[in-house]
Amino acid sequence: MKQIIRTLSWEKDKLEIIDQTRLPENEEYIKLCTVEDVFEAIRTLKIRGAPAIGIAAAYGILLAAKKAKIKDKKNFFEILEKSSQYMNSCRPTAYNLFYAVKRLNDIALKNSHLLVKEIIRRMELECQKIFNEDIQSSISIARYGNTLIKSGMRILTHCNAGALATSGIGTALAPVYLAARKHKRIEVFVDETRPVLQGARLTMWELKKANIKCTLICDNMAGFLMQQKRIDMVITGADRIASNGDTANKIGTYSIAVLAKFHRIPFYIAAPLSSFDFSKPSGDRIPVEQRDRKEITCIKGVSIAPENINVYNPSFDITPGRLITGFITEKGIFACEEIHMLAKTEQY
Amino acid sequence: MKQIIRTLSWEKDKLEIIDQTRLPENEEYIKLCTVEDVFEAIRTLKIRGAPAIGIAAAYGILLAAKKAKIKDKKNFFEILEKSSQYMNSCRPTAYNLFYAVKRLNDIALKNSHLLVKEIIRRMELECQKIFNEDIQSSISIARYGNTLIKSGMRILTHCNAGALATSGIGTALAPVYLAARKHKRIEVFVDETRPVLQGARLTMWELKKANIKCTLICDNMAGFLMQQKRIDMVITGADRIASNGDTANKIGTYSIAVLAKFHRIPFYIAAPLSSFDFSKPSGDRIPVEQRDRKEITCIKGVSIAPENINVYNPSFDITPGRLITGFITEKGIFACEEIHMLAKTEQY
Repeated sequence: MKQIIRTLSWEKDKLEIIDQTRLPENEEYIKLCTVEDVFEAIRTLKIRGAPAIGIAAAYGILLAAKKAKIKDKKNFFEILEKSSQYMNSCRPTAYNLFYAVKRLNDIALKNSHLLVKEIIRRMELECQKIFNEDIQSSISIARYGNTLIKSGMRILTHCNAGALATSGIGTALAPVYLAARKHKRIEVFVDETRPVLQGARLTMWELKKANIKCTLICDNMAGFLMQQKRIDMVITGADRIASNGDTANKIGTYSIAVLAKFHRIPFYIAAPLSSFDFSKPSGDRIPVEQRDRKEITCIKGVSIAPENINVYNPSFDITPGRLITGFITEKGIFACEEIHMLAKTEQY
Repeated sequence: MKQIIRTLSWEKDKLEIIDQTRLPENEEYIKLCTVEDVFEAIRTLKIRGAPAIGIAAAYGILLAAKKAKIKDKKNFFEILEKSSQYMNSCRPTAYNLFYAVKRLNDIALKNSHLLVKEIIRRMELECQKIFNEDIQSSISIARYGNTLIKSGMRILTHCNAGALATSGIGTALAPVYLAARKHKRIEVFVDETRPVLQGARLTMWELKKANIKCTLICDNMAGFLMQQKRIDMVITGADRIASNGDTANKIGTYSIAVLAKFHRIPFYIAAPLSSFDFSKPSGDRIPVEQRDRKEITCIKGVSIAPENINVYNPSFDITPGRLITGFITEKGIFACEEIHMLAKTEQY
């Protein structure tokens, strides 16, 4: 299975990304040349999706190291430290960001005896490794997830956890792509995912591009579909998973998990190990980003509510592990009680 | 408690309504001069909310009778029959429409021995009666509902069941207005209510106008608020209630009812008896309107999804009576098992 969409690519000291704020109308690619460019692209959701954020952050650190005027090795590590802090402050929830920034720091420290130029070369190789591992993870997730999908199934997904969220074929959508390739007859129901509409704008775009039968619904329609027995399975991605399986994902995921439980529909999270934060015993320790009120009160610059009103806009919610049927990872499918065992897995 | 907003008013053979498709930006009043005007205004959601639809439909029938060139009494009853069928085909779910059209027909039949001119005069009085009863119902609903509201409560509502949905002060919002008037400290969380955004556009507008503390959320955020114990009670309106308490209301209501059950939060329906359809033993007999796909793919004329995609757009869902803590009506608060008793109540 080859990469479906050129979500991000590293070309001659520039990170090229598809600008996801311009989709689905415009398939526009932009070049990020500095760590500030990467920071701004992540913050403004030009690039989003936990694995893609991680990869972009890694290249952001690399760009900081490459573009800085470095006096000596001490100065290099100061710059690395500063740019890492900066990058880590970009968005608080997706664990992949911190994971990738840490990997870049670890590789630099591990090679601190080498010349700065050589350290940077190793960092670039590490970025490439993170990028390639993510492709491989999505293929493994596809294979494990595909075992759960029977022909005729109608799958609900929320937000975008497809090719646009990774360097590969996605997390939640990866099994869908593989099942379709294996000629299983499937249909995907896509929550539009307010406020930023990643489902309507991004998931519908990439599923349509891949010729997969898909139907757009508003977030508040999923329960009614379940009541009518028109959903067989739910798969979403994750931004951060705690040791006990509590999962931060796009706002609305928790409600779907409760609805799935009520209707006895299996609810799966698909995510690579780079989204697992084993330092957090439970979900209440995961920071939830609050975003600008305008995401709710304006859609594409058009106001949809009265002015000067109170708005609550959490970008994520936390789904308790006990509501999750299983976690589809590159190492297999796990129940939430088994997650702590994954902590021992060699990650890199 | 006086009427807060001039949602509809009958003036010199014209029904004047506030155009709800223009809110919150423009407080614009339009005059409906024919039954076709009324039909179009209901169909395009210029006027909406079950009780308001009923009142408008009654005046629509009156306009048909008043504006027609009537040859004789037989012809009058033919016109009445035709315009009633026409009006009943306007929107399928809100029971108040059929209820009001039937009342106008019943009054005409009851007075069929009189001159046509006199029958029409009785019909006009009946319209006035329906209008005034709705004001009184909303006041009674306010009084009964207010007994459930304690100071400090945070109330979630969905769609708009306020003054804009009735000739009075609303259904779901009526108790809120009375509680606020009695200086109870309350906060209302308002689901934006995709696709047509009645919560964001209408409920926020009227609550703000009434100086009631309110916070706008996307529909998919209600569950997360409940998880955080930030919702004490849910009140919504209803479009049609079956004998067993199954309730058709704006799409998304069912999901909130399931979430409320899961979190053990009381979930109330506030509705006048004119929304109860005792001919339907259960909710599966209530027709659910499917509306234009563009309601989902476009917001205020701006496209938010790829072109030529599948869309599912049910305008209502059915909440089983067993998920509903109580029905706040003008006759008191009832459990779903008690609803059949209301069938015996003199309605008009």
